[in-house]
Amino acid sequence: MATPVNIPKLLDLTIDNITPNTIRINSQCPNPRLRYLMARLVTHLHDFARETRLSTDEWMEALNFLMGCGQISSDVRHEFILLSDILGLSLLVDSINHPKPPSSTEGSVLGPFHTHDAPTLPNGSNMASDPEGEPLLCICTVKDTAGRPVPDVKIDIWETDSSGHYDVQHSDRGEPSERCVMVSDSEGRFWFKGIKPVSYPIPHDGPVGKLLERLGRHCWRPAHLHFMFEKEGWDHLITALYARGDPYETSDAVFGVKQSLIVDFEKADAATAKEYGFKEGGLLLKHDFVLTTKEETEKLRDENAVKALAQLGLQLKLVDHLPVPEID
Amino acid sequence: MATPVNIPKLLDLTIDNITPNTIRINSQCPNPRLRYLMARLVTHLHDFARETRLSTDEWMEALNFLMGCGQISSDVRHEFILLSDILGLSLLVDSINHPKPPSSTEGSVLGPFHTHDAPTLPNGSNMASDPEGEPLLCICTVKDTAGRPVPDVKIDIWETDSSGHYDVQHSDRGEPSERCVMVSDSEGRFWFKGIKPVSYPIPHDGPVGKLLERLGRHCWRPAHLHFMFEKEGWDHLITALYARGDPYETSDAVFGVKQSLIVDFEKADAATAKEYGFKEGGLLLKHDFVLTTKEETEKLRDENAVKALAQLGLQLKLVDHLPVPEID
Repeated sequence: MATPVNIPKLLDLTIDNITPNTIRINSQCPNPRLRYLMARLVTHLHDFARETRLSTDEWMEALNFLMGCGQISSDVRHEFILLSDILGLSLLVDSINHPKPPSSTEGSVLGPFHTHDAPTLPNGSNMASDPEGEPLLCICTVKDTAGRPVPDVKIDIWETDSSGHYDVQHSDRGEPSERCVMVSDSEGRFWFKGIKPVSYPIPHDGPVGKLLERLGRHCWRPAHLHFMFEKEGWDHLITALYARGDPYETSDAVFGVKQSLIVDFEKADAATAKEYGFKEGGLLLKHDFVLTTKEETEKLRDENAVKALAQLGLQLKLVDHLPVPEID
Repeated sequence: MATPVNIPKLLDLTIDNITPNTIRINSQCPNPRLRYLMARLVTHLHDFARETRLSTDEWMEALNFLMGCGQISSDVRHEFILLSDILGLSLLVDSINHPKPPSSTEGSVLGPFHTHDAPTLPNGSNMASDPEGEPLLCICTVKDTAGRPVPDVKIDIWETDSSGHYDVQHSDRGEPSERCVMVSDSEGRFWFKGIKPVSYPIPHDGPVGKLLERLGRHCWRPAHLHFMFEKEGWDHLITALYARGDPYETSDAVFGVKQSLIVDFEKADAATAKEYGFKEGGLLLKHDFVLTTKEETEKLRDENAVKALAQLGLQLKLVDHLPVPEID
């Protein structure tokens, strides 16, 4: 029960001295990165309360809101990812961590519906089991920024069914559906059958939905297909393709849409239909994805970090590509 | 499915434009106070991510931490209050909302263990059922800042048992114990029997305990008794009395201790023991609490708010005693 000796004397703390004292006691942390994160977190949290003169009722309401987010979460629902999404934080964190050179495919938000149990299917497979969905043939390639094919990329693909729900949102979910994993072939190609994506509301029966309502915001996302690309040595790409002309194209509740990710559907001609075992005149999506190497992305991220931190006037150095104070 | 017309066009959002766009879409909120809170929250959250170049792994770890806090919470445990406590936010919010004129009793943190089921007991009652606890007689008064007694104040009192656990921390909790509600008599007095408080660790088997460990901080609170005073027209006082000389007196994990709240125990003399039906030589605590009126506190809080916001250079006005922008 002995008290450590090197900690500040915490007594008579006030509106004015609580912040430096909290930072000082947290400075016992042996990890410099966590120390920096906590110092900035405490500063922002306290500044927020001071600037808003946060009331006790508002404070309690916020803590209960957070508890509610935790309690509605489950293995297949992460309300805090949704919260991060609608506050623009997910888009921001993705932009910071995965900067893209002009020629590469831009990222988009992950969302809370990716799972780890999607089956790996051979090229050409149908990942959808919804008979109401309009069949869609997707023919894609994965290339590097110099236009060379990238083989053996693991590609996670997921979308909703025609009712706008992911499989995990159905309480009687059996096998994974409208999701699969594919691997690009020696020419960087992958192709599969899915269904035409539809716009859908993000889950709005929980605290995040109620918050959107109080903010006067709608909870809709424009129709899209999710893609995630993984290969050792390459930057992890989380993105989505959005159907042009969707009513929510410019008001996505989670800020994910980028011009470069808006796509047009074509109609499969007779030759394509025959080659891919698809219906002539059926919906066709062709897309070329461009990956960057891990090295390219890290270099760009570091450069951006150094530039941004200098603009903010912060004396920081990068350790393992993450900022920590030059002098603690 | 029609898109509202007055919202910004959300497309191609970046590190640099995500913040104003998130604030603009939230500005549809009809409540000016919530609009201001959200604008400041989004600004701080985004600035935090930009300043730290928050990594995707750190972001996910933080969201999982928050989910864990929600999932360990229950009717009798609020992990987010604990989190707020150890980050100094609870102390700060209490200080903002309950400023004290020099002659009045200072506040302290509520903590997560107040319940609403404590029995109202007549003066002189014993609220403790722990045979291992050292009996303590408390003789108290409630007065106003002019020294006049305040009758009919509802006083919630709670403390741990001799093992350092609140009743709600025992899975086999039956009746409430080591807690009660008293009412001050016509001379502002209340007296009761409890047990000598002991130092104890805050619950550290959850995410908050693990965070304290990573920060190199201990999880102990010095021995104390909680008090909460409520009466229409009077400022709600949440406070605690701390036993002088506790090893954690100057390192309280939740920043609650104030010099003015550190008390000495006496020994009951023969006359006191006889008058209160207590053991001669037993532990005695005498304390005079001083309440402020709701009006006094509101005036002081408004003055502090106006001064602080001017110092911050913010153009705000108070509506219902809470700041909102003068011009939206």
